[in-house]
Amino acid sequence: MRPQGVIRRKRDGGELSPREIAFFVHGVVSGAWADYQSSALLMAIFLNGMTESEQQCLTEEMLRSGEVLDFSGVPLAKVDKHSTGGVGDKTSLVLAPLVAACGACVPMISGRGLGHTGGTLDKLEAIKGYRVQLDLKEFREILGRVGFAMMGQTESIAPADKKLYALRDATETVEVIPLIVASIMSKKLAAGLDALALDVKTGTGAFMHDEDKARELARGLVATGKRFGVKTEALLTDMNQPLGRAVGNALEVKECIDILRGDCQDAARPVRDLSVELAARMVALCGAEGSLDAARVKVERALETGEALERLRRNVEAQGGDPRVCDDPARLLDLTLHEVRVESVRAGFVTAIDAAEVGRAVASIGGGRIRMDDSIDPSVGFLADAKIGTEVEAGGALGLLYCRNPADAEEASARIVAAYTVGDEPPRTLPELIKEVIT
Amino acid sequence: MRPQGVIRRKRDGGELSPREIAFFVHGVVSGAWADYQSSALLMAIFLNGMTESEQQCLTEEMLRSGEVLDFSGVPLAKVDKHSTGGVGDKTSLVLAPLVAACGACVPMISGRGLGHTGGTLDKLEAIKGYRVQLDLKEFREILGRVGFAMMGQTESIAPADKKLYALRDATETVEVIPLIVASIMSKKLAAGLDALALDVKTGTGAFMHDEDKARELARGLVATGKRFGVKTEALLTDMNQPLGRAVGNALEVKECIDILRGDCQDAARPVRDLSVELAARMVALCGAEGSLDAARVKVERALETGEALERLRRNVEAQGGDPRVCDDPARLLDLTLHEVRVESVRAGFVTAIDAAEVGRAVASIGGGRIRMDDSIDPSVGFLADAKIGTEVEAGGALGLLYCRNPADAEEASARIVAAYTVGDEPPRTLPELIKEVIT
Repeated sequence: MRPQGVIRRKRDGGELSPREIAFFVHGVVSGAWADYQSSALLMAIFLNGMTESEQQCLTEEMLRSGEVLDFSGVPLAKVDKHSTGGVGDKTSLVLAPLVAACGACVPMISGRGLGHTGGTLDKLEAIKGYRVQLDLKEFREILGRVGFAMMGQTESIAPADKKLYALRDATETVEVIPLIVASIMSKKLAAGLDALALDVKTGTGAFMHDEDKARELARGLVATGKRFGVKTEALLTDMNQPLGRAVGNALEVKECIDILRGDCQDAARPVRDLSVELAARMVALCGAEGSLDAARVKVERALETGEALERLRRNVEAQGGDPRVCDDPARLLDLTLHEVRVESVRAGFVTAIDAAEVGRAVASIGGGRIRMDDSIDPSVGFLADAKIGTEVEAGGALGLLYCRNPADAEEASARIVAAYTVGDEPPRTLPELIKEVIT
Repeated sequence: MRPQGVIRRKRDGGELSPREIAFFVHGVVSGAWADYQSSALLMAIFLNGMTESEQQCLTEEMLRSGEVLDFSGVPLAKVDKHSTGGVGDKTSLVLAPLVAACGACVPMISGRGLGHTGGTLDKLEAIKGYRVQLDLKEFREILGRVGFAMMGQTESIAPADKKLYALRDATETVEVIPLIVASIMSKKLAAGLDALALDVKTGTGAFMHDEDKARELARGLVATGKRFGVKTEALLTDMNQPLGRAVGNALEVKECIDILRGDCQDAARPVRDLSVELAARMVALCGAEGSLDAARVKVERALETGEALERLRRNVEAQGGDPRVCDDPARLLDLTLHEVRVESVRAGFVTAIDAAEVGRAVASIGGGRIRMDDSIDPSVGFLADAKIGTEVEAGGALGLLYCRNPADAEEASARIVAAYTVGDEPPRTLPELIKEVIT
């Protein structure tokens, strides 16, 4: 078999056989396929698509390209959540302790932020001392003892995905459903889960702006999870504005801890609501509770009693972080930063927000990465006070920007102002946080 | 500008701007585009096509990536021919001396064979001592003195094409008209021609099996040539069986010399007819004769008087070859080879020939290249006695195979037998040698 034959078949709109897909994935890892051959096939897949069976076969081969983790020593149901990424998307830090407090465990393998989106690992590292690089033994130990553990992808998990993702990023072949499904699911399935909740974002701050495309992705992810024997559900959720109030790593961790402490500001309410709903679905899906309604009650109780906060404290301590942030979240703030009020240039109602642009503005002051090797300033960020539907005065605050120096602030502030659309009339409808459940 | 933006535009079906195309071609040569980015764009072009103006812009940038030859010191009209390649396609060796004998000159820059097709350089090297690697000064001198000179592509001509062709070959993005047009024309336009005749092959031994596709290619080539101020015409010709009798380098050179000596076997007749027609069109196109009819008369006369043979003799001598082959073409044959009669397994009429398979069978015994770095045995080959329409007995000869050892012969012979379709009825129509003239 030669790469050319495989490329030709997909180029001509045909269906690749399981053997051809295996040959491709092995070849990507071994180097038997040259990068330029892989990228030609990726473009052909982008333009000609893949059938459901090709997609599942690709997922399986990518999964098999690496190690499948074994948590059989932890006698709890294993459940994880994956989000397709957004701005201010911080639910992992709330829901993992919630699920752990409800008797399931969450072996969460997370990523870093890139471009306009944040990443869970970056947020956790805003906690002084927190270590996300654990070896598997330590990860397993913390998982069993605390109920959740957080770490970065290891070299041994789905190495084909790592290689292919870098190629897709350089060749504009990222945004295609079968490749996204295989990339996400090959990593998630490697964590040996019983159940998986997916948070598929749609809107101005999501990779999938288009709701129909996002729905198609959610369906592909759910079908693939089930096919591999993992109980899988997806929520299709709104990303037409930053989720909650905080955008920026330390500010986001503080928002999560505030929520777990029962101190939830109005602007942070969607974070609480979505985290609770995702946690309840995770608890029900993995069988730690018999029904979704019962799971919701249990999750709310774990939040109100402070049990979830306690789980977070134990996790932070176990992973080397300063647990005092759980008692005094203001410790996360850097008071030497400049606080700049971002003001609306006109009076009216916020009708739309380019959430990706808000994310990029925060990245531009050091809060995120433009390139993968950029370093991050965990403290900078933006607190979005005005959301879609908010009435603002001319010169009224859209939010507060925290930055290292005033020169940076000016440009970032202007970008955020431009990302807000303020009209004369209030928007006819407000974004619905959870648009659909795909089971 | 970044490669990603250019890839994205073509991926999404858009039209690339002249600046984007220039950025791509420069980037291919400079290395600013990674190979995997170039191949992703090539696949997007393969699947989404190019407009005529993109195609012409790509041709121009590829042409400009290298040197344009200057033959202004040679005071004759310059005209060349390009064939899209086939099996037994040897017209260059007949038509170049014919055109030179008619008062125009032919600065022919040729290629080597790959896969089922032969290449003019390989055929010439079947003549003992013949040198195809000339420097430009020597090439120009022979051109002026003899009226035609033959050499291989230099590093300085269209270097972007060399790089892109290698990528296309490895990524199944060869057979797409705008890329073929740009590849052929960027090299041909670099030879500073007044006129160009194109021989676009269609059929089982051509790259373009499909006649409509071949016609589309011919039109693209002619339009592009004209656009660059070169008088250009194309013949759409049949490649549903080997052209003439000989397949294999020395055998083909002998067939050409036989024709120039007035010794044309029936099976070689199509080589003579097509060479004369192409030569006449070249002579008329470049203005060396006032009309096509007058050019035909002149070309026939050059053939009959032996003037063309004399030109070939002078060229062979000038390029270091043994000119005695022109007097005694049998000198080209290697009498130590095994001659194997390839026999039909049944009686009937030849209704079809897989000409590419005949070419591959000859390549398999050393007469061609499977890979670009294979060496060639100039002497081996096949003489096709049975052509479409020929009546054969069971056990009757389809042709004669010449090979180095009997073991090779068996497999090659079986491939050739399988490439012939012999039916009970004669074919309803015979292939028409020249299907269409595109001006």
